Amino acid sequence: MSYFDAASSAPLHPVARQALAASLDEGWSDPARLYREGRRARLLLDAAREAAADAVGCRPDELVFTPSGTHAVHLGVSGAVAGRRRVGRRVVVSAVEHSSVLHAAGEEAVRVPVDRYGRVAVSDWAGALGEGVALACLQSASHEVGTEQPVAEAAGVCREAGVPLLVDAAQSLGWGPVGGDWSLLTASAHKWGGPAGVGLLAVRKGVRFAPRGPADERESGRSPGFENIPAIVAAAASLRAVRAEAREEAVRLRALVDRIRARVPELVPDTEVVGDPVGRLPHLVTFSCLYVDGESLLHELDREGFSVSSGSSCTSSTLEPSHVLRAMGVLSEGNVRVSLPLGTPAEEVDRFLSVLPGAVASVRERLGAPVGAGAAAGAAAGPSSLVVDALGKRCPIPVIELAKVIGRVPVGGTVTVLSDDEAARLDIPAWCGMRGQEYVGAEERERGAAYLVRRAE
Amino acid sequence: MSYFDAASSAPLHPVARQALAASLDEGWSDPARLYREGRRARLLLDAAREAAADAVGCRPDELVFTPSGTHAVHLGVSGAVAGRRRVGRRVVVSAVEHSSVLHAAGEEAVRVPVDRYGRVAVSDWAGALGEGVALACLQSASHEVGTEQPVAEAAGVCREAGVPLLVDAAQSLGWGPVGGDWSLLTASAHKWGGPAGVGLLAVRKGVRFAPRGPADERESGRSPGFENIPAIVAAAASLRAVRAEAREEAVRLRALVDRIRARVPELVPDTEVVGDPVGRLPHLVTFSCLYVDGESLLHELDREGFSVSSGSSCTSSTLEPSHVLRAMGVLSEGNVRVSLPLGTPAEEVDRFLSVLPGAVASVRERLGAPVGAGAAAGAAAGPSSLVVDALGKRCPIPVIELAKVIGRVPVGGTVTVLSDDEAARLDIPAWCGMRGQEYVGAEERERGAAYLVRRAE
Repeated sequence: MSYFDAASSAPLHPVARQALAASLDEGWSDPARLYREGRRARLLLDAAREAAADAVGCRPDELVFTPSGTHAVHLGVSGAVAGRRRVGRRVVVSAVEHSSVLHAAGEEAVRVPVDRYGRVAVSDWAGALGEGVALACLQSASHEVGTEQPVAEAAGVCREAGVPLLVDAAQSLGWGPVGGDWSLLTASAHKWGGPAGVGLLAVRKGVRFAPRGPADERESGRSPGFENIPAIVAAAASLRAVRAEAREEAVRLRALVDRIRARVPELVPDTEVVGDPVGRLPHLVTFSCLYVDGESLLHELDREGFSVSSGSSCTSSTLEPSHVLRAMGVLSEGNVRVSLPLGTPAEEVDRFLSVLPGAVASVRERLGAPVGAGAAAGAAAGPSSLVVDALGKRCPIPVIELAKVIGRVPVGGTVTVLSDDEAARLDIPAWCGMRGQEYVGAEERERGAAYLVRRAE
Repeated sequence: MSYFDAASSAPLHPVARQALAASLDEGWSDPARLYREGRRARLLLDAAREAAADAVGCRPDELVFTPSGTHAVHLGVSGAVAGRRRVGRRVVVSAVEHSSVLHAAGEEAVRVPVDRYGRVAVSDWAGALGEGVALACLQSASHEVGTEQPVAEAAGVCREAGVPLLVDAAQSLGWGPVGGDWSLLTASAHKWGGPAGVGLLAVRKGVRFAPRGPADERESGRSPGFENIPAIVAAAASLRAVRAEAREEAVRLRALVDRIRARVPELVPDTEVVGDPVGRLPHLVTFSCLYVDGESLLHELDREGFSVSSGSSCTSSTLEPSHVLRAMGVLSEGNVRVSLPLGTPAEEVDRFLSVLPGAVASVRERLGAPVGAGAAAGAAAGPSSLVVDALGKRCPIPVIELAKVIGRVPVGGTVTVLSDDEAARLDIPAWCGMRGQEYVGAEERERGAAYLVRRAE
């Protein structure tokens, strides 16, 4: 079995397991009590806070433990916004933040767009920091495509504008501290090999912060509920352990990811590797495969012993493609995210590369996808315009139908695809870009939209 | 060492430890994922939910796991109130609910008073369920004095009034399911010997419920954040194990608590045992000692190897006596709560009873408390009224000063105690009741109040 989904949840690090077991005997008592068992629990909690703060790069009294990364984000965003309610309530986010950040920021949040690599431009970021902005939120690196954000620069322009910056460091904290003059930082232990049940929320001294929700004395009044000390100890210990391995592992895993980035397009026709090839997390790579549905591909790979995730619409409960891929404007069908846990052997990556082409081919065959790069070429025998009715059909069928008929119209002729699948909005233009065809545009219809494509070659 | 504070946090049950260790290998993955590791995590989560629902007495799809009992209360109260916003926003609570319930219910909540045992009257409860009441909250049993509430009857009158009842079962769930037709129920695993990091929130089908806070898909949208599956498995397994021992342990611990209830007043002069002697939790007893400060007594007991807690003002961060003791109108000074963990040997209780008199005497001696029950008796040589200025002095000094001078005024004469200590409000009347003196009343002053006592014997 090869588990390649560390970005969802990393396997428990051996140090986390040891620390958890070792602290169960002394960590169950209430650290607010003054008797012996309480004092012991308090010592464990204090030591864990010191260690975690050291890894974050903040003071221990700036750091609280929360029950999860999601809680850290919810508490951080709501507390920072409430702390600046006199200024306004608007939140600025990148368009590719984790859903917990987007939900906490609310519908009215200003979403700063990203480029095709998934990165915000600092000039756009600065431009969004207008009147009435209470808080800005930028991830350190993307959980979906690995691209690193210009956090230090964004923190600089935030500081100039007097707007606090919250950095969601969930994906990167195991690899190293977040640079720059950020105001708040959030993270999640189970992403670095710590246990579930522990998030981090750092709030720099001087940042206006007003905790929301019912009052509670725990964790400086910033995170309610009885502290889960054994898990907190395990989280802090494993963060330290992971950091000790990080430099070496980053180099090794980066080379393995580079191998995937280079080999996938060679081994599998009609694929697109997305995300920044250089300024990225060391262990994560995402690619998409034309004419493939993500769910079937994940099943094929699971049968072969590989656990990966996908941003394709068919793998989401809402049947919408990942908002990250959408913001980047890249292909979403047949999407695969590979995120390698620490210690992944090179052989497993090689085996993945040997298995992937067959898995993709098998899904494509089942779907009746056009085979070979030249499927669309050849002289047209048909009319100069065609309409494909793909209403009610799900990703990747509308794109497959388009690919099948484009060769029937002459160069300069058009194909109109009728589709009510949300993925088509992203994947038809992406297909055109990949296949050298001209995407003219979409026209909204009562049901879905009509996508117009002109044959260019 | 004898840990007698199970009501704060119970030592980890061996079954919880085993289940935690056993599920670390399969419980770290994301149960929302479809690959092998995710499916295994989902199986563990589903099985834990079945087991916990069975112990609660609800359907598995009515139960969600939260990161703590406090979260269960916050989420339960806010969701239930939001679900009935058309009716109103008012919450009815007993005056002795846990602080998490009182904080969640808000300042405007209607607090139903309790009798000297700490119990609400069902007629009062019914009377509070007027127009605009969104939710009523009643604990199954008191965390501070052990008194059981008439939950089934309260649920009945709530049902008649069309108001959902939330039962905080944090202290009782290990002993058995909560009877009656409640609508919502909350609990906390570390109170029954499960791990920290797990609360339960049950919401009966048909109860209007609108989760508040940022959207999140976990736990049916009712409790955000990545599930802590190993802890959840350990919580469910230990609840089952504790329940298997509960009947026998309840009988045994009830006898030990009865021994404490009977012997403390015999062994230690000027003590008051509080809470219902019969309708109570089996393992918990609370008493208060005149002329003693709780913090010193806890330190004395800690030095002797006993870990207990206290509702005295000196042991709270706000320097106010427990709101539970206040609502009951009982003595708060020198307050001690003993809550026995499962398996507490009778010998430890006997040793506690042998150590307690010396510990109390030592504190009293240090404070210069009047010695012996007859301290106030005797002929008065002084004037018919005296004023004691105890401003700036903390519990139990104002009461000690009162006790020292009461014998100086003749029977029928008065002593006025000036005090700005919040505990005096409770403890001066309580002292009068215990010593057969007449408490006339208090008059608010710019600083504190003037308490008037008439010598009656």
